[in-house]
Amino acid sequence: MNSFQFHNPTRIVFGSGEVDKVGELTAGFGRNVLLVYGGGSIKSTGLYDRVMNKLQAAGLVVHELSGIEPNPRLSTVKKGIEIARINSVDFILAVGGGSVIDASKAIAAGVPYKGDVWDFFTNKARIAEALPLGTVLTLAATGSEMNGNTVISNWEEKLKRGSGSPLVYPKFSILDPTLTYTVPANQTVYGSVDIMSHVFEQYFSLTPNTPLQERFCESILLTVIENVEAALADPENAAARANLMWCGTMALNGGQISLGMANDWASHGIEHEISAIYDIPHGAGLAIVFPNWMRYVYRERPDRFAQFAERVWQIPRNGRSDEELAEAGIAATRAFFSRIGAPASLADYDIKDDQLDRMASEAVRYGTIGSFKKLGEEDVRAILEACL
Amino acid sequence: MNSFQFHNPTRIVFGSGEVDKVGELTAGFGRNVLLVYGGGSIKSTGLYDRVMNKLQAAGLVVHELSGIEPNPRLSTVKKGIEIARINSVDFILAVGGGSVIDASKAIAAGVPYKGDVWDFFTNKARIAEALPLGTVLTLAATGSEMNGNTVISNWEEKLKRGSGSPLVYPKFSILDPTLTYTVPANQTVYGSVDIMSHVFEQYFSLTPNTPLQERFCESILLTVIENVEAALADPENAAARANLMWCGTMALNGGQISLGMANDWASHGIEHEISAIYDIPHGAGLAIVFPNWMRYVYRERPDRFAQFAERVWQIPRNGRSDEELAEAGIAATRAFFSRIGAPASLADYDIKDDQLDRMASEAVRYGTIGSFKKLGEEDVRAILEACL
Repeated sequence: MNSFQFHNPTRIVFGSGEVDKVGELTAGFGRNVLLVYGGGSIKSTGLYDRVMNKLQAAGLVVHELSGIEPNPRLSTVKKGIEIARINSVDFILAVGGGSVIDASKAIAAGVPYKGDVWDFFTNKARIAEALPLGTVLTLAATGSEMNGNTVISNWEEKLKRGSGSPLVYPKFSILDPTLTYTVPANQTVYGSVDIMSHVFEQYFSLTPNTPLQERFCESILLTVIENVEAALADPENAAARANLMWCGTMALNGGQISLGMANDWASHGIEHEISAIYDIPHGAGLAIVFPNWMRYVYRERPDRFAQFAERVWQIPRNGRSDEELAEAGIAATRAFFSRIGAPASLADYDIKDDQLDRMASEAVRYGTIGSFKKLGEEDVRAILEACL
Repeated sequence: MNSFQFHNPTRIVFGSGEVDKVGELTAGFGRNVLLVYGGGSIKSTGLYDRVMNKLQAAGLVVHELSGIEPNPRLSTVKKGIEIARINSVDFILAVGGGSVIDASKAIAAGVPYKGDVWDFFTNKARIAEALPLGTVLTLAATGSEMNGNTVISNWEEKLKRGSGSPLVYPKFSILDPTLTYTVPANQTVYGSVDIMSHVFEQYFSLTPNTPLQERFCESILLTVIENVEAALADPENAAARANLMWCGTMALNGGQISLGMANDWASHGIEHEISAIYDIPHGAGLAIVFPNWMRYVYRERPDRFAQFAERVWQIPRNGRSDEELAEAGIAATRAFFSRIGAPASLADYDIKDDQLDRMASEAVRYGTIGSFKKLGEEDVRAILEACL
């Protein structure tokens, strides 16, 4: 186990109907609120009205930024910064999934910053100040509701980049599983793949002596696997929706499940290059990339992959070697993703090999990626080829 | 899963040698620090000098309260409040285990309170204000380093009572596993039993649909069980000490592993009555009480106890009923406690039956205790009798 620091000040308010506390939770951070949301779904479900009523009943003045994209764009973030500045906004309330929350964090950091907010995503500047923000989560997926990360796409330059700061941890996040009843099947699948992928990035690690962390990771994987199909079969399955939601938050709340472990994040880096160009759903991209990353790297530490096969996929050893078990575990992962309806290859999105060089070179722009196995340009290209 | 709120603002600084950050972490909370510690052990190990040097190098003025008892006493807390007031202390630094931290929390709450600090432990008043505090942990056990709980003994009245508040969460806690290398074998055992007991209080619950929470609980139990004997065999086993320390914190950091579950805490209530009178180590008392509590209550929900037997003690079902598995799991718990050297009965402390009535009636002074099975006076007496 390595040394670490951990500090996660986000207040979680979890439960059926808890969204109705949004007014009282938001009041106290100032009078002018910027409400950030995505497409029209929160209007058709009635969530928009429900939130707006509570905010207004709490005496708040609400400004709005709608139309956050699934891969949230820099241009939209800049629009939000403008609205927030003009209206002297005190607090940002994100109502949506990871995209809406990530965009809100970028706006929160951008408002007090004199330069271009994109500087935070190109390592040109660090977030030194931010407006406070809160969230009402509508999708079990990113964990953005309890961490300081944000990923933004610069669509003009076809770049997708991450940033983060302790300053953009949400002050509160309302996790009301009933709000996910209306999430369509494909989004439920992508969200679940995203959760599992966040765990993979932490679990496949070379750091020795982390038995508790590994078990925490396995706990989330097992619970997601148990619950996805129930949520697909019955979108209003309260138990499954609650479990997926809590798994999503715990999977990436400042890295708590893997404190003291080196994390990998190469697969996310590779996926970001794909969706920067092709704008495919993040979780769909991860379902394609991850099994191929696993096949490419598992020989670095077959015992961890064997443990994954045994504990998560409950594949009995039956005299098999670590390598054989590892391969069985990876096959089980791929089979599970396919069974729940996640795509298996880039061909599912008609993506061909013409951009592989660009993606591979962009992925390693700051040097090798990953820590389980450090990947250079050739490695990334090989994994992308396997994804075709 | 029930609704819940969670907010844990404690900063954790974990790792070998991290204690040397105590000066920089403490500075910024004001100039006058009250250093709180227990017996002489931190002096003989050199920890006292190490901490003091860092505090002084950071320009801080250090006042001291030493001699915190293993079951920390109200009289000592009052002494600390007096010292803090006289010296206009800005910050309290606890260097020790759960007793020292609990006493520090009571002092932190008592300083700004005009009434008797004991009011917070008798439900006469609620903590409305507190001095900030930080901790340097020297024992893997209570979790007090990352929660808002405190338990204090009123020795004159033979009462041991708990209190708590979000206001007494430590601002930071330094978890340096090397500081536990000198913890004697019996304290290592009691600490480990304490950690396991904290998990038991949360894990044995009637709340339905909590698969992630149950697995988090099992993760800690498995990891403690794997590491106690390694730490006993080699007190400087870095891996074992680090794992036990992190298990202790995660087992009771504001109830994070069991959010949304009804907790029990009857066994702690019963143990408090024993140590209030006989001043035995808390972990030792729990090792005696818990298996007897388990035997008394498991029929409320044999399936949870069967799961405990299978997942934690790895007892195969082999056609056994839930009840049979439950009994095997309880026997395994008792056998493990005995194997690591924890006491099995009150007779080990020459405690006889003459105070059972008093203890049973005190335990239920505010009504039944526990939630897995609600225990009245007769139930508590029966469990205590089984402990003899």
